Order: sequence, then C-alpha cells, then structure tokens
Amino acid sequence: MSPHQDNIMIGIDDVRTAAARLDGHITATPLLALPALEELCGAPVLCKAENLQKTGSFKLRGALNHVLSLSRDERAGGIIAASSGNHAQAIAWAARLVGTYAVVVVPADAPQAKVHAAQALGAEVVHYARGGEDRDAIVAALARERGLAVVPSANSEQVIAGGGTVAAEILAETDQVSTLVVPVGGGGLAAGCAVAAKALSPNMRVVGVEPEHGADTVLSLRQGRRVSIPIPATIADGLTHATPAPLPFAINQALLDQVVTVGDAEIVEAMAAAFAHLKVVVEPSGACALAAVMCGRIEIFSGTIGVVLSGGNIAWTTFRSLVGRAETAGGDRGVPGLHAGSVQRAASTP
Amino acid sequence: MSPHQDNIMIGIDDVRTAAARLDGHITATPLLALPALEELCGAPVLCKAENLQKTGSFKLRGALNHVLSLSRDERAGGIIAASSGNHAQAIAWAARLVGTYAVVVVPADAPQAKVHAAQALGAEVVHYARGGEDRDAIVAALARERGLAVVPSANSEQVIAGGGTVAAEILAETDQVSTLVVPVGGGGLAAGCAVAAKALSPNMRVVGVEPEHGADTVLSLRQGRRVSIPIPATIADGLTHATPAPLPFAINQALLDQVVTVGDAEIVEAMAAAFAHLKVVVEPSGACALAAVMCGRIEIFSGTIGVVLSGGNIAWTTFRSLVGRAETAGGDRGVPGLHAGSVQRAASTP
Repeated sequence: MSPHQDNIMIGIDDVRTAAARLDGHITATPLLALPALEELCGAPVLCKAENLQKTGSFKLRGALNHVLSLSRDERAGGIIAASSGNHAQAIAWAARLVGTYAVVVVPADAPQAKVHAAQALGAEVVHYARGGEDRDAIVAALARERGLAVVPSANSEQVIAGGGTVAAEILAETDQVSTLVVPVGGGGLAAGCAVAAKALSPNMRVVGVEPEHGADTVLSLRQGRRVSIPIPATIADGLTHATPAPLPFAINQALLDQVVTVGDAEIVEAMAAAFAHLKVVVEPSGACALAAVMCGRIEIFSGTIGVVLSGGNIAWTTFRSLVGRAETAGGDRGVPGLHAGSVQRAASTP
Repeated sequence: MSPHQDNIMIGIDDVRTAAARLDGHITATPLLALPALEELCGAPVLCKAENLQKTGSFKLRGALNHVLSLSRDERAGGIIAASSGNHAQAIAWAARLVGTYAVVVVPADAPQAKVHAAQALGAEVVHYARGGEDRDAIVAALARERGLAVVPSANSEQVIAGGGTVAAEILAETDQVSTLVVPVGGGGLAAGCAVAAKALSPNMRVVGVEPEHGADTVLSLRQGRRVSIPIPATIADGLTHATPAPLPFAINQALLDQVVTVGDAEIVEAMAAAFAHLKVVVEPSGACALAAVMCGRIEIFSGTIGVVLSGGNIAWTTFRSLVGRAETAGGDRGVPGLHAGSVQRAASTP
C-alpha cells in the first residue's frame, strides 16, 4: 500500500452516491471497440466515449454531482466556476437543470466554441487574462460579492466522485479491462476513476496521461509535492493546468500506477484515428489517453485496455486545421490516423 | 389498414429472433439527445447512432442476421454480396465471425475507404461498372460458379428483420418517440423499422428519407409499383439505388407513413450539425434523416422525433471537402451546422 493512501478523502461509496444522483441526468456513454488498434497495441482496446456525454465532456458528471449536493439555499444563490471551457458548459447545464444562475470565469484565450456554448446555455461569462490574474482570487471575490456557490473544476470531493462514475460504468459493463488510461488535467477525473477502479477491481492498473508541455502532475509526482510549471503551451486546451489541484493530487499520488506524457502530434494522430475508426469527434485533451496507447507509451500486460475519451468540444475549423496535417498518415487510402500496415493488421478481428 | 398490408412477409417475431441472434455480436448503439435542434424542430430529437455500430453502419445487423440463419453447409461454402460499400464491410465482418470466406461485388465508383475496409477485414473484392453491367447477374453467376451463398443488401427477410432491431432498441429505451425518421436506400432498414415500430407502438409514425436525386422509392410509391430511375447522382453514396428492392418495397408501401426527400446541401448541414452538437461522424447517406428533420421536411405533431443516423463510413478527406462548405453557416462562432439563432434557441434546454 502506498504511504499516501491515508490521504484519500473519498471512497467507492461517494462514487456510488454520485451515480445515484446523476442517474437520469447524464448519458450512459457507450464503450466503443477499436479493433483497428488491437494488433498495434497487443491488446484489445475499448474507448469510453465521454465526448458523447451531455455538454460534450465528462465534466457534467462532477459539476452536476457537486451542484446536486448543495443545499437548496446554496443553489438558489447561483453558482460560479473557473474553467477553460468544458467545466463552464457543465456548470451552465447544471445551473439550468436545477433552475439557478451560473457565472463562469474563463481565460481570454479559451476556445470560442466552448465559451459560446456556455453562453448559449445561459451562463454569464467573465474573462480573465491567463498568467496575469489569479483566477481563483477572481472567483472567490465574485462569489463573496454576489453570494455565489463555488463549484471547483477538480478540487472537490463531489466533483472527483462524479468523475469516478466513468470508471464505475466501465466496470459495470465489462470485467475485461486490466488497464484504464485517463487524461489528467486538474486531476479530478483520474482521481475519481482511480478510487472507483481500485475499489471495484483491485488489480486494475490506472494510468494517467498529460500533454508533454503541461506535465505538472508528472513533475509533482516525481518531486513528491505539488509544483507549478509555466502556463502550458499545448493543443490540449482542457489540460493546461500549471499545478495539480490538491485533493485529486493526494489521491493520484496514492492510487495511480503511472502518469505518462504525449506530444501534440501524437494527440492529433489519435483524433484522426477516432474519426476514422470510431466515427467520433474527440478534442485534443480528450484524445490524450488514446494517443498514449497508440504510440506505445502504455506498458501492456494482458487483458483489455480501457481508454477514456474525455471530451469532444472542438470547433470544426480547429479540428480541420489540426487533423488536416494527419492525413498524410492515411494517404490515398483515405484512412487517416493509422498507417496502412496497421489497417491491414486490423484484419485480425473479430 | 393499408390495402398492401397482406403483402408483408415478416413480423415482430422475426425482429425478436434477429435481436436474440445478434445479441453479443453487435453494439447496442446509444440514443443521443440533440437539444440544439429542439426549438428549431418544435420537438425533442433523439438520434440512434448506428454510425457507431461495428463496421460503421447499421448494415451489420441485417447481414449478420442473414449469415447466422444460413445452414452450416451454406456458411461453409462462403458468402457473396453486392454493395456500394457498407454492406460489403458488414459481409466481411460476418464472414470472419462465422469463419468463412466473403466476396463483395462493388461498383467501380464506390468510396475507396469503404472498399479498403472490406478488404482489410479479409473480403475478396470484385469491381463492376455501375450502369454498364447488371450487378445482380454478376453476383448470381459468381455464386453459382463458386458455390457461394448470396446475402442480399436489402431483399431478404433476415436482412430486413436485422434492420428492424434498430427500431426495437429505440423502443426498448424510450417510449417518447412519436415519429421515427429513417433513411431509405434499398429500403430494408425502413421496412424493418416500420415492422418493429408498428408492432410495438402502433401509433408511431415512420417516415422514410431519400436523397432528392435518388428518389426511386418516392416515385415508386406514387406510381404504386416499383419503377427505375437513372443512376442517382448524389453525395449519399449508400442510397444510390435505381429501384427499390421488392421485399422491402412491399412492406414500405404498406407501413411507411411518408417518404420525403432532401438535397445534398441539406445533407451536408446535417453532417456538420452532427459533428458540432453530437460529436459524431456521419456519412452523407447516414445524415439524410437528420437533414430532413433539420430542414423542416418532417411534419411534427407531438412527442419526440427519433432519427436514425445509419452510418459513419466516410474518408476524412471527403468529409473535410464536403463540410468545409458548411462552415459559413456557423461562421466565426465556430459552430457549424446551425445558424447563430438556433444555437441561441438551444438555450431552452435542459
């Protein structure tokens, strides 16, 4: 047992409570098979398609679990959150569902499509300059002034437990997954999934994935404490955290078997493969786990690899310009994302 | 009751038998909510994502049901089918599953990505010139020469019953759908869905959709008999049938409430909307039903509209060149497929 294990504040019961609260409000997203990757990876791959979740990402699970656990008075006063985009949409959706008001504090360089989607759902948007202003201070000040309840994007037991329902759903559907691969931003999804996976299937390995230019968790794990990195420059806009959130970090330190990194080009290859073989749209942050599997960054033992595709919120024009580059991989076969050889190898299934 | 009702050869029991045969071999595809369309259409919209089905289209259901109902001897001799691409992939997959050999007869102008995918699954591909040669004659001759069992793409009770499992799954998940909208090519999917829907929910309307330059079923229904049209010129490559298949036509004549048409530009708008709002890749044929709903071609009474997204097999380069055109609709909002107004109106949900 890890020396950090006693730092863990939440358990499988919190994940079960979250699942019960969320029931009927979220999509039970499908687990999609990716046979084209099987020989390439040496193991079958199943992708949990949280990009098909309401609001386009897993974030709704945590945000809604947090909001539904607020008191009637707390909810009535409105809610506020800081977000690079996906948590903002989730907050906006949650506010609408419980009939309250949402304010989202987003960096000025957040993807417009994400910000517009939160606005379309009725949220009030407050911009701040990333690097210049302290977003948590802005959120705290606004919350105090206007009597809003803060919904953290990762640093909340309810948000972490909500994220854990992703792993719980996978385990309810199949007992074949021996390694679960999850993107790491603030760390809430990885922490929640690790709590659920280790409780329900103690031998399951849980591996986190960060963009290589945004590896604050890798660095923090190495140093044994939360450290800060410069603002990450990566196409994975949902994973641009300068430092891990404290609560998830304590859990990830205790429970994750490994955290690996992937480069932007590898992320784009994974987006192209998801398009070609799974017929789904995955945003860069959402494609990190798949990228790690595709480029051999994950050590494979036996059994099936479970991959969380965490989000799909990307504007068509952005997707087109990113994946446009990847097409040379597929060439005139019209199958991007995997080289001709691996398409051939796909012939090994079913 | 329609005067044609006594022509129907299959019933709900055949669909139930198909569902039992297919269980464990196919993906129970998700029903995705499309709240962004709700106010635009005057009703909630749920999309059955058969583009996420194994082999990338609903075709696996019918093909596999047909193959699994062959005798051991029939299977052992190998199977053959004519297809514009999706049925070919389904046949190749089915052959592999039961451990036999597949030959697919495809038009020379079929999308390369579809043909390559069938080859990657181990199928032998025979090309023919559309318009010049009679594909059914080629299939019959090869079947005779080589002792292969023919698996029709639509004109088979087992194929129709397999297609009907799409509607049966929708009805098992929700009782809210009052109008089901289904693309019509050979007519097998529409026929199977109509059989299942009318048996399980007698008041449900079932509406077919054809590309306007490929409206052989509309014309045939109008004339009361199967008529032939010139080879359709449409981006919906899976729906380029010159005449309806006889068995499904008899059922569709008796059971469909209406068949409407959509233009290529409307299909592209639907593909863009599915990308932006559902995070899924839909091929032109697969987007016809959604296109009909989006452009107001379907009369709405009350309840929810069910839409079958029938396939997602399209090369990235083709998708990019088609949807590239649609981006002006979303403009700098980065949200293609729906005009700014409808994005705003999406704010009405949840």
